[in-house]
Amino acid sequence: MYRMHCETSRHYDVLLTPRVLDPDHGALAEAIGSRRALVVTDPTVDRLYGSPLITYLAQLPSVVTVHVADLSEHSKTMASVIDVCAAAQRHGLGRRDLLVAFGGGICCDVVSVAASLIRRGIPYICVPTTLVAQVDAGIALKGGVNFRGTKNYLGCFAPPHRVLLDPTLLRTVPAPELSSGLAEILKIALVLDARLFDRLRQVGSELLHSGFTSPPGAGEEVIEQSVRLMLDELSANCYEDAVLERLVDFGHTFSGRLEELSHYQLRHGEAVALDMALTCTLGVELGLLAERELMEVIGLLRELGLPTQSRLCTPDVLFEAMHSTTAHRDGALNLVVPTTIGKATFVRDPLDIPGEVVDRALARFATVTAHGLISTTGHGVPA
Amino acid sequence: MYRMHCETSRHYDVLLTPRVLDPDHGALAEAIGSRRALVVTDPTVDRLYGSPLITYLAQLPSVVTVHVADLSEHSKTMASVIDVCAAAQRHGLGRRDLLVAFGGGICCDVVSVAASLIRRGIPYICVPTTLVAQVDAGIALKGGVNFRGTKNYLGCFAPPHRVLLDPTLLRTVPAPELSSGLAEILKIALVLDARLFDRLRQVGSELLHSGFTSPPGAGEEVIEQSVRLMLDELSANCYEDAVLERLVDFGHTFSGRLEELSHYQLRHGEAVALDMALTCTLGVELGLLAERELMEVIGLLRELGLPTQSRLCTPDVLFEAMHSTTAHRDGALNLVVPTTIGKATFVRDPLDIPGEVVDRALARFATVTAHGLISTTGHGVPA
Repeated sequence: MYRMHCETSRHYDVLLTPRVLDPDHGALAEAIGSRRALVVTDPTVDRLYGSPLITYLAQLPSVVTVHVADLSEHSKTMASVIDVCAAAQRHGLGRRDLLVAFGGGICCDVVSVAASLIRRGIPYICVPTTLVAQVDAGIALKGGVNFRGTKNYLGCFAPPHRVLLDPTLLRTVPAPELSSGLAEILKIALVLDARLFDRLRQVGSELLHSGFTSPPGAGEEVIEQSVRLMLDELSANCYEDAVLERLVDFGHTFSGRLEELSHYQLRHGEAVALDMALTCTLGVELGLLAERELMEVIGLLRELGLPTQSRLCTPDVLFEAMHSTTAHRDGALNLVVPTTIGKATFVRDPLDIPGEVVDRALARFATVTAHGLISTTGHGVPA
Repeated sequence: MYRMHCETSRHYDVLLTPRVLDPDHGALAEAIGSRRALVVTDPTVDRLYGSPLITYLAQLPSVVTVHVADLSEHSKTMASVIDVCAAAQRHGLGRRDLLVAFGGGICCDVVSVAASLIRRGIPYICVPTTLVAQVDAGIALKGGVNFRGTKNYLGCFAPPHRVLLDPTLLRTVPAPELSSGLAEILKIALVLDARLFDRLRQVGSELLHSGFTSPPGAGEEVIEQSVRLMLDELSANCYEDAVLERLVDFGHTFSGRLEELSHYQLRHGEAVALDMALTCTLGVELGLLAERELMEVIGLLRELGLPTQSRLCTPDVLFEAMHSTTAHRDGALNLVVPTTIGKATFVRDPLDIPGEVVDRALARFATVTAHGLISTTGHGVPA
């Protein structure tokens, strides 16, 4: 009777803007313009940057309020989203007004879901304050919140209005949090760019221990390259309605389940690190990856302060995670396995990873990773 | 540094499928296919159609569960959305599995918002069971729920996977509910199609009193034409990201506030009828519409069993509604005013409707509509 065609085309800019809170820095002022805005942040960021943030916002022509929300992985829920929606309603945001996420990945997630719901979608700006958010959670379209024990069960695809990346904010990020972000950069390097992998071997450890200030320029360079590769990879399929095969899902098959089982004691990037180590080991057992390269990966993970072993890595957990990933990916496992540093392939069928391969991989995993390891979160297994 | 382009293109079919629950009718079976599905309905529809629905679904090859949700305008909230999400999670819906809304407009709204959130968006099918839902709430992309006193403050743009329209389901819809749906058809006719307006004058009353069964074929014809015009009008701007001027917003400037103030005693279509009568009267005062045509509109509204007067129509309420509409439409009022039957224009600036025009219009409104009127919901003012 009637075929309805629905098309939408949007774009947004991701800008590298060091010292975004300097009073004479125009990037955030320009992004907000004359619109009413609600800036959402969390208590930690508020303690560190609340004062310069409020000074900065006070000089804008528009009406801007800061909302400090209690955000942690445990409060990455619809309740937090509803809380932001209520604050937006109290602040009288119109359909073209703005939410601003000034915080880490959870802040960016909660704000994007809230923005997608308010008046059926209002614009939002991300100013990610952690490394994970600057290279992953805060730059793309996906927002998600946890629901009744399932990570990111509810969420949205909502392109931000703009993303402002300020590497100088990373000075105040604790080393374990930086490690977690470095895991996401390593993820990109491993499947897409051997040069970025080499660069991480050269400067990763120094970046980690200097709060991304040293060597000079290296922080910006690594972030820029990682973001560029990530967004290039996403752009052809940014609503994931074309295919469900995404190289950037590397490290994200077992990690969600590991996070859940650790009751979120394990940071996201730490779980991704474990997942990458596990997947590379599976890759060796499947004959896809050379053992020498697996050892290079394990070595770099350690240098970047990331765990490479955990009591949570059992055959049951691996099968459970592969099963739920297969459900999420519509019947295909689509496990991303590196074939060398900088290249990867997909293992589509769960049956291609039989029980004996998992057992052999876990045995190898225990051997190659069991050298003097105590992870920062206590999930490490000492040799 | 990086410009990200985000594009998505979708389409969906709206099919006229009389007797959709006949066991040998393939439309719903074909739409579900082999996917797991959760069918959401409400207690009234369950009482009327639960048994044939379950018989129909039982013969499908896929695993389908019926979830009866307590849905009314008061429960058109995020709590109901969350309830559907939890049922979907318990039922183990994967990313390509389905929600099915089998119910009225509120059911379609709640299901579309839930579907847009689950796993960041799963497909959903609408089988609208009321006239309002068949010509308006259940056929397009917009889902909305009420939030802290504001109608549809939260929601989504989510194209359905398919829409199945069965006019035979309307036999069991009470007359006041049918009137409410006829108000939405009249809305379309008034701004887009004089022929449809004439057709409503010929058959509207008979359709109303026969549960859309008589004259034969007229129900399908009127629904099909109304849906076609509505979707044609929406299709160029279905995410409302191009412009905020929509002819189909006629009757939707004051109606939301009237519904809120009546504590939802006033049905949506009844509030739209009042809004249309008010707006046409404003049109006469603004010199845009002939008084003779206003009287034709009032006459047809009455024939269709719709209210044309209410104690709630005061200057304060009108200004309040124009103010909040202007906020929702980004600083423009965009009041749709018919200039003749079948054509309309936009009054963009709220300042073009000064206080004295509103006062004069309300005085005229009281005169022209005060003839033997008792509305079905007690909001009528007797002569």
